[in-house]
Amino acid sequence: MLSKNQHKLITSLHQKKYRNQHQLFVVEGVKVVNEFLSSSIQLEKLFCTEDYYNSNAKHTTQIITENELAKISNLSTPNKVLGLFKIPKPIVLDDKGLILVLDTINDPGNLGTIIRLCDWFGVTKLVCSKNTVDCYNAKVVQATMGSLSRLPVVYTDLESYLSAIELPVYGAIMKGENIYKTKIKKDAILVMGSESNGISKDIEGFLTQKITIPRFDKNNSTESLNVATATAILLNEFRRS
Amino acid sequence: MLSKNQHKLITSLHQKKYRNQHQLFVVEGVKVVNEFLSSSIQLEKLFCTEDYYNSNAKHTTQIITENELAKISNLSTPNKVLGLFKIPKPIVLDDKGLILVLDTINDPGNLGTIIRLCDWFGVTKLVCSKNTVDCYNAKVVQATMGSLSRLPVVYTDLESYLSAIELPVYGAIMKGENIYKTKIKKDAILVMGSESNGISKDIEGFLTQKITIPRFDKNNSTESLNVATATAILLNEFRRS
Repeated sequence: MLSKNQHKLITSLHQKKYRNQHQLFVVEGVKVVNEFLSSSIQLEKLFCTEDYYNSNAKHTTQIITENELAKISNLSTPNKVLGLFKIPKPIVLDDKGLILVLDTINDPGNLGTIIRLCDWFGVTKLVCSKNTVDCYNAKVVQATMGSLSRLPVVYTDLESYLSAIELPVYGAIMKGENIYKTKIKKDAILVMGSESNGISKDIEGFLTQKITIPRFDKNNSTESLNVATATAILLNEFRRS
Repeated sequence: MLSKNQHKLITSLHQKKYRNQHQLFVVEGVKVVNEFLSSSIQLEKLFCTEDYYNSNAKHTTQIITENELAKISNLSTPNKVLGLFKIPKPIVLDDKGLILVLDTINDPGNLGTIIRLCDWFGVTKLVCSKNTVDCYNAKVVQATMGSLSRLPVVYTDLESYLSAIELPVYGAIMKGENIYKTKIKKDAILVMGSESNGISKDIEGFLTQKITIPRFDKNNSTESLNVATATAILLNEFRRS
């Protein structure tokens, strides 16, 4: 049984303002919820149907009906369980290894895919501009397929961050150096820009190395790659080097 | 002014059955329509608002109102123009260069992204299993951002196709050879499998080389990559070699 207040709280978490106020976010579906349960992210409460409860009764759980689940779910096909988790405390970043920096990524699916890529390629530091879509947005959480449970995401003012740091700063732009021929340092920052405008002018000034994925036929082909696929290719380049 | 029959024809093209019957498909929005207009794909008819017409009046065009456009559009924000284009005749494939083969890709966004990647990396041959989502599906067309106008897509029975061809057949599976250490041939087939199940058992038998993108931390990270991002990384590997 779901109370009116619980319903109100959960649906309010679709908005960033209430996620920040309550320091909570929503995770849905058996597979993704289970990944968060086995991570260091703290559970606030699980709402689940009876058959999920019968196989997972160890947590602070409340049984609800499928109809109640449908009312609070963001999924087109709700899947047995919805968890409220606590937003983790911000981490302090060191300057070791590869740090991925996102400048104004708007699309939740792209951010989710990029978080999953970081998880695959062992990138443990993801820094986002303040106007990048919130990683606790429900669509982002689901698109990460659980990878968000293993990756702390930092939102900060990129100009302050990049002025203070002393690492080489690689940035993906249309007319940069061929990435296949670029010498890649192990401790470094990689900046990816927005879907429509690329890296913003204010941030471009911080780049120490402008890089490009070579296009096969420059005269007659697509002008750009999607930011998530470009990130996939560049993270692979950093890891294979 | 849009006639009742035109409205009926255009909305019927959301279904593959009617696209096949009429041999027509829908393209929307200024940027994507313009890419198709400048390609070898044949235009049947353009429906557009007056301001698009005033700057592009060279084609077989019918002016409609914004309200009429909204009624026939698949976009959440219709953008001035909707074109009906003729489905091109199937091409005959030779066995030169890199051929990408897709086994049961269901998600229109993934197929659209993969077509855009082929365009970027100069892959001119894309072969899909018959149960892969139709490339003339409106969501696929829009996700290709115009790249579909430059890439012929062939749908065929993969078992017959692969049994007849004599090229090396690379396939992306979870436990294959490290792609960074694999010798890559220029004339070759690369097979990518479905979002949930990978390459199907029947097709796996045709692989001459099983390949994998190395995962950084095998014990504690995401189990898999999205098929579009994995394709991005592997096409990049084929092109950089």
